[in-house]
Amino acid sequence: MQIITDIKKIRTIIAQAKRRGQSIGFVPTMGALHTGHASLIQKSRRENAVTVLSVFVNPKQFGAREDFAAYPREKNKDCLFAKKQKVDIIFYPSVNKIYPRSFLTSIKVDRITKTLCGRFRPGHFDGVALVVTKLLNIVTPDVLYLGQKDAQQCAVLKQLVRDLDIPVKINICPTVRENDGLAMSSRNQYLTPKQRREAPVLYRALRDARQKIQNGERRTARVIKHIAALIRHNSSGRIQYIECVNADTLQPLQGLRGEVLIALAVWFGKARLIDNIIVKI
Amino acid sequence: MQIITDIKKIRTIIAQAKRRGQSIGFVPTMGALHTGHASLIQKSRRENAVTVLSVFVNPKQFGAREDFAAYPREKNKDCLFAKKQKVDIIFYPSVNKIYPRSFLTSIKVDRITKTLCGRFRPGHFDGVALVVTKLLNIVTPDVLYLGQKDAQQCAVLKQLVRDLDIPVKINICPTVRENDGLAMSSRNQYLTPKQRREAPVLYRALRDARQKIQNGERRTARVIKHIAALIRHNSSGRIQYIECVNADTLQPLQGLRGEVLIALAVWFGKARLIDNIIVKI
Repeated sequence: MQIITDIKKIRTIIAQAKRRGQSIGFVPTMGALHTGHASLIQKSRRENAVTVLSVFVNPKQFGAREDFAAYPREKNKDCLFAKKQKVDIIFYPSVNKIYPRSFLTSIKVDRITKTLCGRFRPGHFDGVALVVTKLLNIVTPDVLYLGQKDAQQCAVLKQLVRDLDIPVKINICPTVRENDGLAMSSRNQYLTPKQRREAPVLYRALRDARQKIQNGERRTARVIKHIAALIRHNSSGRIQYIECVNADTLQPLQGLRGEVLIALAVWFGKARLIDNIIVKI
Repeated sequence: MQIITDIKKIRTIIAQAKRRGQSIGFVPTMGALHTGHASLIQKSRRENAVTVLSVFVNPKQFGAREDFAAYPREKNKDCLFAKKQKVDIIFYPSVNKIYPRSFLTSIKVDRITKTLCGRFRPGHFDGVALVVTKLLNIVTPDVLYLGQKDAQQCAVLKQLVRDLDIPVKINICPTVRENDGLAMSSRNQYLTPKQRREAPVLYRALRDARQKIQNGERRTARVIKHIAALIRHNSSGRIQYIECVNADTLQPLQGLRGEVLIALAVWFGKARLIDNIIVKI
């Protein structure tokens, strides 16, 4: 595995691979790697000759009061993890390399960034769009691997790639969960043991809601109320939002139909956890 | 010469050329092709195996009161011109293909877009940045050819390419002029015969200013005053701006030093003409 910090250097290595006709799979991350990331890496390895993993905690996607400073940074641990997963190239740029002092450009994706998490994290998805545009221009992969856990991120990046004609295929991989159903996340590290025991209620509530819809429920408000009640009765979590939206446009649904994304964000102490489920009606 | 309107089609053709190891030169235009464009095409042809010319009158770079509807569109004439110039591929997408109804993304380049023309054409350079990002992602050229006549456009696109890490080299080509010094421009078509006779004063004034600086003048205000006086005394042109700025950052200069861009925009009737000159001090 090559550990590369320099933009020119990684461009050269990737250009060489491309000249050999090798396809490039790309897994962008913020590090603190876990089994969720491993599943993306393995998917990429099965489908491509070369797998590139990037680790970059992107300041532009954190709000002023968010956990940018506290976000776990574990370079050695991540490198060992990536090596074990047989990543070919790990790209580890510094903030100054990605955003030099002379930097002036921003990207905005409208509407789809305003619902769900976007309502509570203004600018977050614009920061994601910007850094992913840059990383895609540096790595120029054939396929970009993303996790369904970050459902809105997936939708925003699909829109971005379509709108800017970025020449990459997007492959969305299923959420990887702990045995008790909790979605894998670097932020699970923030949970106390008690919060950790409670947190699986999120996925239980989402599955319960799906069951209700499959049994015929079509009233959005009822579904949301049901999820909220389960979370409140079984945990100390503070609900930030629970929403049922169109899975492509992320716009709120009056009646439930088509492909529905049920998504939520719940605070457990310092940890803001998100999860979601898709129901096809 | 191939005339391509479809995005997928041009991607396929370019991928084939790249597999043959051919380099791609790209000349983006809004059509109404003239000798200025020809010089970009010839530069690209000398340096690349394949030259792609795009013709797209980009609605997003025109203000509400600007000449989007009136801008000259001469498809047959342009195709003949491009063929004579031995362009390999002319890319002629429709507005709907470039901006489908579902389009949601915008790009902003700060600061460098706010001076010179940007002061009078808010949003113009963001529209340019957006369409060029898209065209670069579609054509994926090795080299992008731009004309120095649009000095601010050159500076903004250099900044954009650097900021977004777009993998392309930028080649800025000298302004091509009529025999009497008037910079070639599609908008020269708007000039009446009288305005056409007057318009060369712009370049005469710029050269005169350069001479003054080379003779030792370092006071920005004096240089601007001199240019303004020449234009006012010798034409019916209405000056929009005359500015002396740093040639890279486009920020105003108190004292003249380094690489100085003297740029101006002057209305002659319906035609807004721009021109510029660089002085190295």
